[in-house]
Amino acid sequence: MDSTRIPTSETDLIPLARQMGQALARAGLLVATAESCTGGLVGHLITEIPGSSGWFLGCAGVYSNAAKERLLGVQHATLLAHGAVSAEVAQQMAQGALSLYGADVAVAITGIAGPGGGTAEKPSGLVHLHLSATDGSQRAERVVWTLDRRGNKLLSAQLALQMLWEFGVRS
Amino acid sequence: MDSTRIPTSETDLIPLARQMGQALARAGLLVATAESCTGGLVGHLITEIPGSSGWFLGCAGVYSNAAKERLLGVQHATLLAHGAVSAEVAQQMAQGALSLYGADVAVAITGIAGPGGGTAEKPSGLVHLHLSATDGSQRAERVVWTLDRRGNKLLSAQLALQMLWEFGVRS
Repeated sequence: MDSTRIPTSETDLIPLARQMGQALARAGLLVATAESCTGGLVGHLITEIPGSSGWFLGCAGVYSNAAKERLLGVQHATLLAHGAVSAEVAQQMAQGALSLYGADVAVAITGIAGPGGGTAEKPSGLVHLHLSATDGSQRAERVVWTLDRRGNKLLSAQLALQMLWEFGVRS
Repeated sequence: MDSTRIPTSETDLIPLARQMGQALARAGLLVATAESCTGGLVGHLITEIPGSSGWFLGCAGVYSNAAKERLLGVQHATLLAHGAVSAEVAQQMAQGALSLYGADVAVAITGIAGPGGGTAEKPSGLVHLHLSATDGSQRAERVVWTLDRRGNKLLSAQLALQMLWEFGVRS
């Protein structure tokens, strides 16, 4: 698996989703995702794999801030203090998805897919990802993609799948 | 828009997602989705459109039955009596997504994407969709797709977008 390859379509990511699923299923782990800027893409990719219902519980698509609070228990104060695209919110999203779905491991993605919405401090393409697991594992990633909206979403999904896969093979 | 065309990739559906978004935005309506067999695909397609954060609240990806109950308030008794792939569950999923996200209109999708999981009574490819809106509108669709897993998901997403679009242009 060459993880540095840039995906150009959803189907490019299906082998990684399959590989991840095999690792998670082998480890007996149940997965959920919390998706802001990817909008459900990771859930879509995972459910391209026949049998994914055995280990995938669902994706909480939380595009609005209100949804982040209501579904995932992201703190209103954290959104105000750090903004929706922040390491703090990504962490709370992942933790919220663990509880909401009763999952063993969850990955959260929040970012600015572009082309608009960027600032000097938070450029278009900025994405925070966070993996949380019930065994206490935490992994945070901050990236700035430089593709278009579609490319940035695909790269974010790729990294999320990669994080879940790496967690799965170590578990 | 030729709604009878069979989509062969995600990008084939982006024009419909854009057209739907324009109709919904024009009508000032906020949208959410509740996705079982599509796994987040509709949310992914909607969020391919720049500016969709103005009218899209999120997708509740509820692959497991427990998630259907926990996130969307689907009744356990309804799941037992009719199964997860039923008109009754689709309706409760749509109603649940309206409340969960505080949306004006929501579409729910529950089905058997295939290739496995089908029975004589509920064949692979069977999908129930339901649109609910806060103005009391309801629309139910039952279809049996005959493509592979990927094709059945794309056709389901296309119909969901079509239902939202048709609701938007009439609102």
